[in-house]
Amino acid sequence: MAYDRRIALAKDGPSLSRLVLGIWRLLDGDDKPDADSVARLIAAALDLGMTSFDHADIYGNYEVEAAFGAGFRRWAGRRESVELITKCDIMLKSANRPANRVKHYDTSAAHIAASVDRSLLNLNIDYIDILLLHRPDPLMDAGETAEALARLVKSGKIRAVGVSNFTPSQIDLLASRLPFPIVTNQIEMSVLHTDPLADGSLDHSQRLGYAPMIWSPLGGGGLFTGSGSREQAVRTALSTVGDEIGEKDISAIALAWLLRHPARLVPVLGSLKPDRMAGMVRALDIVLDRQQWFAILEASEGREVA
Amino acid sequence: MAYDRRIALAKDGPSLSRLVLGIWRLLDGDDKPDADSVARLIAAALDLGMTSFDHADIYGNYEVEAAFGAGFRRWAGRRESVELITKCDIMLKSANRPANRVKHYDTSAAHIAASVDRSLLNLNIDYIDILLLHRPDPLMDAGETAEALARLVKSGKIRAVGVSNFTPSQIDLLASRLPFPIVTNQIEMSVLHTDPLADGSLDHSQRLGYAPMIWSPLGGGGLFTGSGSREQAVRTALSTVGDEIGEKDISAIALAWLLRHPARLVPVLGSLKPDRMAGMVRALDIVLDRQQWFAILEASEGREVA
Amino acid sequence: MAYDRRIALAKDGPSLSRLVLGIWRLLDGDDKPDADSVARLIAAALDLGMTSFDHADIYGNYEVEAAFGAGFRRWAGRRESVELITKCDIMLKSANRPANRVKHYDTSAAHIAASVDRSLLNLNIDYIDILLLHRPDPLMDAGETAEALARLVKSGKIRAVGVSNFTPSQIDLLASRLPFPIVTNQIEMSVLHTDPLADGSLDHSQRLGYAPMIWSPLGGGGLFTGSGSREQAVRTALSTVGDEIGEKDISAIALAWLLRHPARLVPVLGSLKPDRMAGMVRALDIVLDRQQWFAILEASEGREVA
Repeated sequence: MAYDRRIALAKDGPSLSRLVLGIWRLLDGDDKPDADSVARLIAAALDLGMTSFDHADIYGNYEVEAAFGAGFRRWAGRRESVELITKCDIMLKSANRPANRVKHYDTSAAHIAASVDRSLLNLNIDYIDILLLHRPDPLMDAGETAEALARLVKSGKIRAVGVSNFTPSQIDLLASRLPFPIVTNQIEMSVLHTDPLADGSLDHSQRLGYAPMIWSPLGGGGLFTGSGSREQAVRTALSTVGDEIGEKDISAIALAWLLRHPARLVPVLGSLKPDRMAGMVRALDIVLDRQQWFAILEASEGREVA
Repeated sequence: MAYDRRIALAKDGPSLSRLVLGIWRLLDGDDKPDADSVARLIAAALDLGMTSFDHADIYGNYEVEAAFGAGFRRWAGRRESVELITKCDIMLKSANRPANRVKHYDTSAAHIAASVDRSLLNLNIDYIDILLLHRPDPLMDAGETAEALARLVKSGKIRAVGVSNFTPSQIDLLASRLPFPIVTNQIEMSVLHTDPLADGSLDHSQRLGYAPMIWSPLGGGGLFTGSGSREQAVRTALSTVGDEIGEKDISAIALAWLLRHPARLVPVLGSLKPDRMAGMVRALDIVLDRQQWFAILEASEGREVA
Repeated sequence: MAYDRRIALAKDGPSLSRLVLGIWRLLDGDDKPDADSVARLIAAALDLGMTSFDHADIYGNYEVEAAFGAGFRRWAGRRESVELITKCDIMLKSANRPANRVKHYDTSAAHIAASVDRSLLNLNIDYIDILLLHRPDPLMDAGETAEALARLVKSGKIRAVGVSNFTPSQIDLLASRLPFPIVTNQIEMSVLHTDPLADGSLDHSQRLGYAPMIWSPLGGGGLFTGSGSREQAVRTALSTVGDEIGEKDISAIALAWLLRHPARLVPVLGSLKPDRMAGMVRALDIVLDRQQWFAILEASEGREVA
């Protein structure tokens, strides 16, 4: 048994590869990748079945989209063979945005439209597959924001709308003004961050039928290096399950733990190293049984279920 | 004035006796009751107007249902004159379930169907009045679970479906897939555990019209023996009200405090001693006035209302 | 740019002045105001555009309504040129209510009807513009309460129904039984109390389209005198914004911070001094930009947004 390599985020919603490649660290290393190496990265991801790439305007201090876009043009594959997700509404204090005097959010119609135009230009594309509101904006005027998003869909600049880090209550508000469904909520979850199991996020997504995208699906590295008792217990539990099924890469087990959830979670992988990516993609062939899944949960929460 | 002796849990839902007898401690004593003594217990409960009996597959390390079932056959009254509730989905580590290596939950279709078949066999009955999901399962696939429950209702093996320890969000999810309403949510509440007044559980049940069943309605014994300041303050408040109305058994007052709530709470009594049961049944004749009710709340929460 | 001086609380709901005068401190001083001075206060408020007055049966130990009512008769303006809001359901221990032995709430039909009759008499009016349930009553029987409120609207004694300090869950419950929408939820919020931004209250109100009234919109005085680090940081942030826009009264900035929210907040001002009122009314001409708004939020929460 194995998981489907592709997933429809919502009824009549867009399809992504079940594992999405997150591009936020593209410029984190000392050697900035040139267009050729980005093109190779894209090809390597596709070879592994990952056709979906997760961006945000702010990644790499507002510079990742353009670096990716240069590589995307060099790659020269068919636009329709990949899906590009990007986000807007966080306003960083940055030399690239000198007008921002305080970190804030902006879900105004003007900012959303301008941000989409910049992302299209940077990415060298003429449509975005999914635009996400990056963070809930306490000043969101749901009517204005929804109208701006609907206009962008109508214009063809974006094909679908999602959110990120929203509560069910915030989703219900925005959804009440949109003429189409929200296709995803990108949230943090991992074997080290299990809050969404209890805070209603996954109840809401399963009830309404949208698939959550998952950021930091490996817990941000703590899984491998953390010395706290939680990290150690989880590492042991993952290794034990790995021994049972013959998988040495605990990343793959940790991702399989997410894939097992009926809310249809779509992990966004943060590593851009092809060998790490290949290890993680094996998660798609690992279907944990209930007891393996709960043994990992028990290790993470430090107690039996009630 | 007094409370009705019977209550319909929901519109077109099943009716129970207003006080339900919880059977979970049937095998807790040193002398295990034989079929004759269980038959006498059933008769004693009915004499007190308690026709509804609350079970779970796991009670008494998976052995209570069968012990009760033997007594139920011996009792030999009409099946229709009683209501039997049971539960499933908790998977204990137990010599009686050697396959369980880790405590977990299971709301899969296969487990629910198998658990119901075992409960029917153990209880010596051919239908269960209400089947409850015992705990929210983080791996619940609402579509699969609801379909399994609907199939059981259609087959006649169970007559109604409820849940236990669910949040409103979890109930909304399951309800969204069921072709009939959920008839109850069995939750913990007492004069020592007042959280449901504020956490939305009772708002939800009153809005949707299902009556919550209440476990540990006396606070698990702490009411009588607890030396903490909360227990002492509540005991004093209950005694004061008891003095006002001429009732010496503070259990009866504590139950009357629950019965007073407009969400129509259905306490599940945990004592199987006929004299204790008789004292508690007097709660049905005690209608507290608002100030008595709030005086007890104030004692429990250690402060005036806002 | 400026804010409209009037606001419709809900679709087809009543209109209020955007700033409401709260009367709860009318009798707090050493010199109790006579009818003439109350009449002058009403005239002064109207001169500033404040036509709406917020009461509760309990204010001033149950005596404010009558003191205001005497002044209202003396004032002798047109009833239709003002809006009077009052509340019920808190039962204080008070020499004026000797029957109350414990502080409690009462949303029974009998109490609501009696409280409205008393408020009408005290205020010297024959209708109340909006009646609010003052606090969520854990014993609220939604059907009974809604029927009582609907009857009062039908009789003409009250023209609209709101609540105060309710959670979304509690509003949904009451709304499920009412034949008309709830027009407001009066909650606490200020630059020093930002919880409603995150607890779902403003999502709910914006989604359903009712405008929240805001009590303690200046944080109860701590804004001016508080020596805690939060108060100091907020004071500095307000002053900085004030310097940018040429407004020396930080009250006006603090109110403008509320007015900027898209959920359409309606602050209830607590000061009855005409010069203080005049300063605050200038808030209606101050439209903060996003960065000013977030700079104040950042000061209040002691951290950048995520």
